[in-house]
Amino acid sequence: MFEKIVEVGILFDFYGKLLSNKQYNIVELYYLHDLSLSEIGEQLQISRQGVYDILKRAEKSLYTYEEKLRLVKKFNDNNKKIEEILKYTNDIIRECEKNDLKNISDNIVEIKKMALQILKNNQEVIE
Amino acid sequence: MFEKIVEVGILFDFYGKLLSNKQYNIVELYYLHDLSLSEIGEQLQISRQGVYDILKRAEKSLYTYEEKLRLVKKFNDNNKKIEEILKYTNDIIRECEKNDLKNISDNIVEIKKMALQILKNNQEVIE
Repeated sequence: MFEKIVEVGILFDFYGKLLSNKQYNIVELYYLHDLSLSEIGEQLQISRQGVYDILKRAEKSLYTYEEKLRLVKKFNDNNKKIEEILKYTNDIIRECEKNDLKNISDNIVEIKKMALQILKNNQEVIE
Repeated sequence: MFEKIVEVGILFDFYGKLLSNKQYNIVELYYLHDLSLSEIGEQLQISRQGVYDILKRAEKSLYTYEEKLRLVKKFNDNNKKIEEILKYTNDIIRECEKNDLKNISDNIVEIKKMALQILKNNQEVIE
């Protein structure tokens, strides 16, 4: 169950904006605010079964979006690569400091800046 | 008009899979295969006006997806940064060759590999 909460939460970060308002609200209340189906039903004035049906349809949509666009997979793949780039840049910067290599050091600082910006960009997808 | 063809074409690359089959076909025939509304109507056995309506709704959906997800914008932003990373890596590699700096050179080759993989990943979004 915990794994599913995390999974739907991530899919919601990426594709939530593509859901209808009602679907969006119910997924948010259930997965992010941890309300029960009955509590959500009371709050939105619909039956528990109604909430359940909307929630299931919303979840299905989120998984379908990922099947079609693969944004979460690409996001994770790219983040891993950027993390590796950052690791290498740090190694190089240390190496340059040891050997006083100004030119290389300046360039690598730029690479690091770019990699951080890409990470920040990716992060904005889920904000 | 040419600008719009390119714009819708790019949006279609990113979000085409989210359209209905009928919308997908009509956008493809009109923008990629360059058929007229009447020709598409004949082929799909619907009126010219029907084709027009479906096309307009499909276009609107594509623009709405971009408004909500901003994938095209992020894709372009990230590609620009990766191109800059590649430029810097090439400068550094040249610098290392001049000065015979094996450690730095090995690391920077790895960075270049990562950057190319990210570019390739991004490219797959639109294939």
